[in-house]
Amino acid sequence: MAVTLKDVAERAGVSRSAVSRTFTDGASVSDKMRRKVEKAARELGYSPNALASSLTTGRTKLIGLISNNFHNPIFLEVFDLFTRGLQNCGLRPLLVNLTDETDPANSVRMLRQYSVDGVVVASSTLPPGFAKAFRDAQMPVVHSFGRYSSAPQVHVVGIDNVECGRMAARELLRRGYDHVAFMGGPEAATSTQDRFKGFMSELEAYPSVHVTHSFAAAYSFDAGRIEMLRLLADGPAQAYFCGDDVLSIGALSAIEDSGYSCPEDIGIIGLNDMEMARWESINLTTIHQPIRQIVNSSIELTVAMLNDPDRYPEARIFPCSVVDRGTLRPVSN
Amino acid sequence: MAVTLKDVAERAGVSRSAVSRTFTDGASVSDKMRRKVEKAARELGYSPNALASSLTTGRTKLIGLISNNFHNPIFLEVFDLFTRGLQNCGLRPLLVNLTDETDPANSVRMLRQYSVDGVVVASSTLPPGFAKAFRDAQMPVVHSFGRYSSAPQVHVVGIDNVECGRMAARELLRRGYDHVAFMGGPEAATSTQDRFKGFMSELEAYPSVHVTHSFAAAYSFDAGRIEMLRLLADGPAQAYFCGDDVLSIGALSAIEDSGYSCPEDIGIIGLNDMEMARWESINLTTIHQPIRQIVNSSIELTVAMLNDPDRYPEARIFPCSVVDRGTLRPVSN
Repeated sequence: MAVTLKDVAERAGVSRSAVSRTFTDGASVSDKMRRKVEKAARELGYSPNALASSLTTGRTKLIGLISNNFHNPIFLEVFDLFTRGLQNCGLRPLLVNLTDETDPANSVRMLRQYSVDGVVVASSTLPPGFAKAFRDAQMPVVHSFGRYSSAPQVHVVGIDNVECGRMAARELLRRGYDHVAFMGGPEAATSTQDRFKGFMSELEAYPSVHVTHSFAAAYSFDAGRIEMLRLLADGPAQAYFCGDDVLSIGALSAIEDSGYSCPEDIGIIGLNDMEMARWESINLTTIHQPIRQIVNSSIELTVAMLNDPDRYPEARIFPCSVVDRGTLRPVSN
Repeated sequence: MAVTLKDVAERAGVSRSAVSRTFTDGASVSDKMRRKVEKAARELGYSPNALASSLTTGRTKLIGLISNNFHNPIFLEVFDLFTRGLQNCGLRPLLVNLTDETDPANSVRMLRQYSVDGVVVASSTLPPGFAKAFRDAQMPVVHSFGRYSSAPQVHVVGIDNVECGRMAARELLRRGYDHVAFMGGPEAATSTQDRFKGFMSELEAYPSVHVTHSFAAAYSFDAGRIEMLRLLADGPAQAYFCGDDVLSIGALSAIEDSGYSCPEDIGIIGLNDMEMARWESINLTTIHQPIRQIVNSSIELTVAMLNDPDRYPEARIFPCSVVDRGTLRPVSN
């Protein structure tokens, strides 16, 4: 019952080869021919079958979209942007859940079975060994939200997390806080390590400012809340740079339940500027990470890599900026 | 450079056919042979290629996982459960984003191009015409979170939303509220229609209770907040059954910003019991929808359907229950 390429060729009054070329990316076909074929295909409800065409091209158009944290609401935005963007490029996002996976070899095996053309690692917490294992297995890889490096071994699109740590420190100094702290995400995550490094290095020049630090177990509400409850019991700092927005929201919940006020007693600055950060009931002062630009650029790079598998790896870094909402005290005069 | 089936056969000292059978679901092979082949495959790092095997089986093992709302945090939980569950069954979740899509024919064309073996519609707001169009195009379909029907035309796994509406009404009556209201999701969604119907029908027997209703534009924080701000300006009811949890959280934000207290001035009961509902800073009284059971059952049904495409459509309905937290006043004595 399915409409075939032959049916379309007959209706359009053209050769089968012309129909095939119309639906093959990059193949040569005149505009007039393309219009004829597309009209006939539309009228018949024809759609080229990806499985069949992958036989001739050796490509499946499947892109493995890898995530390992489904407790951070930011990933819903990331999935939305990736699925729309990949769909618009004629690519197909295969969602790969690597929560609890520790062995890169298992993931390589899975992605091989999945016959993906390429892989997007959308995570700042997956150990860098994974992206390298994919590359070593000859899979085109883009690491979105990965660690910036001046000598990238795989394509990386993201932000300079060290600079973000500095930015958070400067913002707290500007507000006149003299006991500040870093409440990071998981210590093993490169994003945490880099944000911590930048934060501490900026504060080195201010010996009068008291600086403390600690790490939460994960980028999640629960981890942020638990860590802040512990900090409050020990006697809190005046302001915290929390590793990301969802940790910040957990920390705010702990602050409120413990009888403190934010920003009156304790200030919080997050990182990401996810949709929830601007919810009026949260209203989080945070560092904006340009998620849309990172995702779009990751997709561009994926497409470029599929066309040129030997493409030299590059790091694409996007600037961040502070979004002032309601969780830090006003700038002192 | 890739390890082939032939390499594995040579290393294991068996025929190529034995290797092929080892990696074909349901094919006959002795345990001893299987162990030999798996050992050789492991040593060589061999993984059977799904694309190649789909040629012989006619199956891609791709399941289209369809969503159209990336602003409701519950879907992060839904994606997590679906991707893990499908992966565990050797199936591959292809995430399909139908936000803003209105024409089922476009979606059918896209899924054909994607060569999916089956489709899971994970949405209560996608018009029923979509699931029917997939079925009419001979694609195995499971509609998760779809509308319960005693004569289902496609496989449906979900809850009885009419009964949930009744349950919410009974809970508000039990608390002694005498002006109650339904603040639904989008009026076109079957979930909204059914929850509304149940809510109103339960209250018919209580003419002394004042009942009002309205609908928000979407299942989202912003829509809930905007609708509640409008209701507050008109003079609010004593308690609201909000269409779902994310709407409830938007409504709570509006209540707080307008100088009212919850539950002292206005009560709220939601539906879903998503992860955020139990966040201490939200602490939402809600109706628990058994998301995990619905997803697992949807996956079971998907697998069963792939094995028997002519399987008679069924509706699987799971019971819900009220989770009492902090957004309704205590039961009156």
